[in-house]
Amino acid sequence: MIILGIDPGFSVTGFGVLTKQNNMVFLSDYGDLRMPSSKSLATRVRIFHDFFTEKVDRWNVTDLVLETPFLGKNAQNFLKLGYLRGILYLLSDQHKLELHEFSPREVKQSVTGFGGASKEQVARVVLQLFPRMKAPDKLDVTDALAVTLCGLWRGKQSLVY
Amino acid sequence: MIILGIDPGFSVTGFGVLTKQNNMVFLSDYGDLRMPSSKSLATRVRIFHDFFTEKVDRWNVTDLVLETPFLGKNAQNFLKLGYLRGILYLLSDQHKLELHEFSPREVKQSVTGFGGASKEQVARVVLQLFPRMKAPDKLDVTDALAVTLCGLWRGKQSLVY
Repeated sequence: MIILGIDPGFSVTGFGVLTKQNNMVFLSDYGDLRMPSSKSLATRVRIFHDFFTEKVDRWNVTDLVLETPFLGKNAQNFLKLGYLRGILYLLSDQHKLELHEFSPREVKQSVTGFGGASKEQVARVVLQLFPRMKAPDKLDVTDALAVTLCGLWRGKQSLVY
Repeated sequence: MIILGIDPGFSVTGFGVLTKQNNMVFLSDYGDLRMPSSKSLATRVRIFHDFFTEKVDRWNVTDLVLETPFLGKNAQNFLKLGYLRGILYLLSDQHKLELHEFSPREVKQSVTGFGGASKEQVARVVLQLFPRMKAPDKLDVTDALAVTLCGLWRGKQSLVY
């Protein structure tokens, strides 16, 4: 089981890759993708597509984990988030990935034991679990790893439409 | 100039292809894509991607025209529309298409002369312009052709972010 968890965004996208082998779990990859706002939206969508296509291929990803989005104050941001999610749906079908989605509350509950945890609390737990990980300067990365861990621990709940 | 106009939707997507050669305009293709709701969302996104990749390749499309979306009553539908739009943004960048977007009001204004026209009024004008076209049983097709025509007539306003 090789799990890719993604916290997508047009400015910063956090991601993590966990490999489960027998009863061991390895942190294979993590980081963030930053896309310059000087590029057109279409170009950024393509950069996002190419970046994660490469990750899926390189790590032979089997499972993709996302957080369910919620409509915030800005409907345009919500729509644009949909563009990136559409790309991830495409990848999941093209590469036969198991797709899992959890609400932000489920992710925080699963990782910290408390559904209302702050991003900093989530980061602290993630960095405790992976002590050799460099503390990332963006919480998007620890958020994405929390999503990935939630996929690992609750992996049986595949998304069904 | 070969223009593909699309009115995307998860149940029915209307589309039209217009070819402009010298001062002649040909209706090269039109129709609708229907995706069974029994398929997963990810599979439908992939079907949509493959369908329009094939159209872009077959007709050597140069321009892609879309309507700007608006947030209706259902935020989930708005988000899902974003998935399909994300795929079209990807295609536009991958195939170096000129991307144009117009508001529903601009499209109706451009085709019927009245920004508040009904779908039926739009359909009537479109069917008058293309008398050999079979009257489609879905207004999504005439809507998509109205979007395509708007792109033809107002083609210089490329979308800039």
